[in-house]
Amino acid sequence: MLIANTPEPPYYAVIFSSIKTNKDEGYEEMAEFMVNLAKQQEGFLGIESARDEIGITVSYWKDFESIRNWKNQVDHQVAQKRGKKEWYKAYKVRIAKVERDYGF
Amino acid sequence: MLIANTPEPPYYAVIFSSIKTNKDEGYEEMAEFMVNLAKQQEGFLGIESARDEIGITVSYWKDFESIRNWKNQVDHQVAQKRGKKEWYKAYKVRIAKVERDYGF
Repeated sequence: MLIANTPEPPYYAVIFSSIKTNKDEGYEEMAEFMVNLAKQQEGFLGIESARDEIGITVSYWKDFESIRNWKNQVDHQVAQKRGKKEWYKAYKVRIAKVERDYGF
Repeated sequence: MLIANTPEPPYYAVIFSSIKTNKDEGYEEMAEFMVNLAKQQEGFLGIESARDEIGITVSYWKDFESIRNWKNQVDHQVAQKRGKKEWYKAYKVRIAKVERDYGF
């Protein structure tokens, strides 16, 4: 997993911060499935993900509509429900407009 | 490190994504110093951080001015220079306005 090669701003970010339960059954497979599915969505620009005590996944999108469509995508809905029930003790989703970026 | 207890949007996020070099000397101390220093800045709202292959640190701020002040803070400038020279192979900073959030 590398730093996402996003275009010039503005674009949009979904910051998904989560604390796992101790229950891992099915989690890795679903996480991988969701990343691959996200990549196929209209407006997807990139994704970055890291986990130690907390997990942070940031996905980047062309516009709010793409984010809304992804949130409502059928398989993703199933994953969200299972995540809430089994895998996550707590999570927070933040939807943000990236206005500037820089780096090296 | 828990999920940041941020207020109602809008607020601002600095998404710092990085790939480390193999050089770790002084890194942990500086990272801890920077987190503690950030917490003392005007407009600071919270911070979340995780690292495995990639590191992602998201800090949350009241407004753009707080972010600009933090970027220019003297000790932080020193850390940024050292980071670029020693600790990071690559990084990207994205400054974003959080417009919605939800979670459980």
